[in-house]
Amino acid sequence: MRIALTGGATGIGASVLRKLAGQGHEVVVFDIAEPADHAQSWICTDISNPDAIDAALAQVEGRFDGLVNNAGLPPRDGLEEAILRVNFLGLRRFLDGMVGRLSDGASVVNVASRAGAAWRDSVDEIKGLMACDHATVAAFVAERGIDPVRAYNLSKEAVIALTLARTEAMVARGLRINSVSPAAVSTGILDDFTAAFGEKVARNIARAGRAGEADEVADVILFLLSPQSHWIKGQDIVIDGGMTAMAMSDALGFGDPA
Amino acid sequence: MRIALTGGATGIGASVLRKLAGQGHEVVVFDIAEPADHAQSWICTDISNPDAIDAALAQVEGRFDGLVNNAGLPPRDGLEEAILRVNFLGLRRFLDGMVGRLSDGASVVNVASRAGAAWRDSVDEIKGLMACDHATVAAFVAERGIDPVRAYNLSKEAVIALTLARTEAMVARGLRINSVSPAAVSTGILDDFTAAFGEKVARNIARAGRAGEADEVADVILFLLSPQSHWIKGQDIVIDGGMTAMAMSDALGFGDPA
Repeated sequence: MRIALTGGATGIGASVLRKLAGQGHEVVVFDIAEPADHAQSWICTDISNPDAIDAALAQVEGRFDGLVNNAGLPPRDGLEEAILRVNFLGLRRFLDGMVGRLSDGASVVNVASRAGAAWRDSVDEIKGLMACDHATVAAFVAERGIDPVRAYNLSKEAVIALTLARTEAMVARGLRINSVSPAAVSTGILDDFTAAFGEKVARNIARAGRAGEADEVADVILFLLSPQSHWIKGQDIVIDGGMTAMAMSDALGFGDPA
Repeated sequence: MRIALTGGATGIGASVLRKLAGQGHEVVVFDIAEPADHAQSWICTDISNPDAIDAALAQVEGRFDGLVNNAGLPPRDGLEEAILRVNFLGLRRFLDGMVGRLSDGASVVNVASRAGAAWRDSVDEIKGLMACDHATVAAFVAERGIDPVRAYNLSKEAVIALTLARTEAMVARGLRINSVSPAAVSTGILDDFTAAFGEKVARNIARAGRAGEADEVADVILFLLSPQSHWIKGQDIVIDGGMTAMAMSDALGFGDPA
């Protein structure tokens, strides 16, 4: 397969790159940083900038069998606008630019997050973000007083919602789209999440027994790129070692420990 | 791997059996009907009867690397009690009997259904069913006036809830449990669903382009049995060609067709 991957230099993206390359697939990486290894092709791309995205896409020829929209910024002070520009607006711009370059049957995988799990409670704000573009998002952030943690959560909520919103158009083109929602993954940005979400992260990790690994998320992304998953469309797959299920079971009082 | 499979004679179970056997795995099938092919071992088992389940389990020796709880009855007149006995109570009894026979790291996959998707709206009734056993379920059905369609939906809601409820205990034992929710699959019982759910089934199939295939569901079950999915725990994976995502996007007004 020939796969386009955003954010392939570090973390989950680097693991996806290594695994795809290891299976003999061709990967074109779009990242502002150069991948350490394994990339057959790297196109330096600032995903926060729509013109940079368009310019990067203009450099590639031929068709792709899959797209992994993985580039993202963590919740960190001062990044609120940049988070929305990269994690959602940039992702959408890149997706829109790639659709016409995807082969029949191609699979798109968006990297969301368990931080976006409560998206059903924020449908109006998600629609507000969906109505923004790179030119108007600064005003959106200012008006709503969005801080970096909210920006991160909202960006991932909107990725899950965009996956739903685009399913029908993708199916009509013979393509498919899904997302994955990892939680508490042991990468270079885990400290950002611990700082942003506090005790909750440590508690979830303790309950699952450990943090997740980037390779464990990458394995699921590879499955979603493969023909074995081809009837899964418009879904969000949570990869969290059971953290969500345990919390939901508690909250709902399913006291059936066996 | 050595896998235990309930309901391996027809439909999705027959496909799981064929695929596992084709990959060189050993499969022990527990079904009231004899599988046509591919079974190294068949133990005639009436999953509606707790004594029959216990007797069947007493016949097997050794450990298993996975369990697929697939046996189920469709919504059909007169079957309301039998549906709850097989699809939920029998599944739970079989699971409880198998837990001590599973190897470290083993994976359990419960076959739920998109018919159970609205489980959050029925938490009290699910808890009512969870409090039943085979001896008391007839009274539960009579008291609540449960018809075959409601019995089917409730049984699948309870399978999704049970998957959540058991996640922590399974993780504590070094095991994991997930469910799959297929919709409108082209098997021998698709007519039962069309009769039970009417126009909705035909509309969903038209929108997805076609009904699903048993092999497409089996591919996801095999993924959930494999090490590649090992950080996915307590999740329900919907396999429906996008039917759910399209309906949700409509309902929420995510008008972003691109």
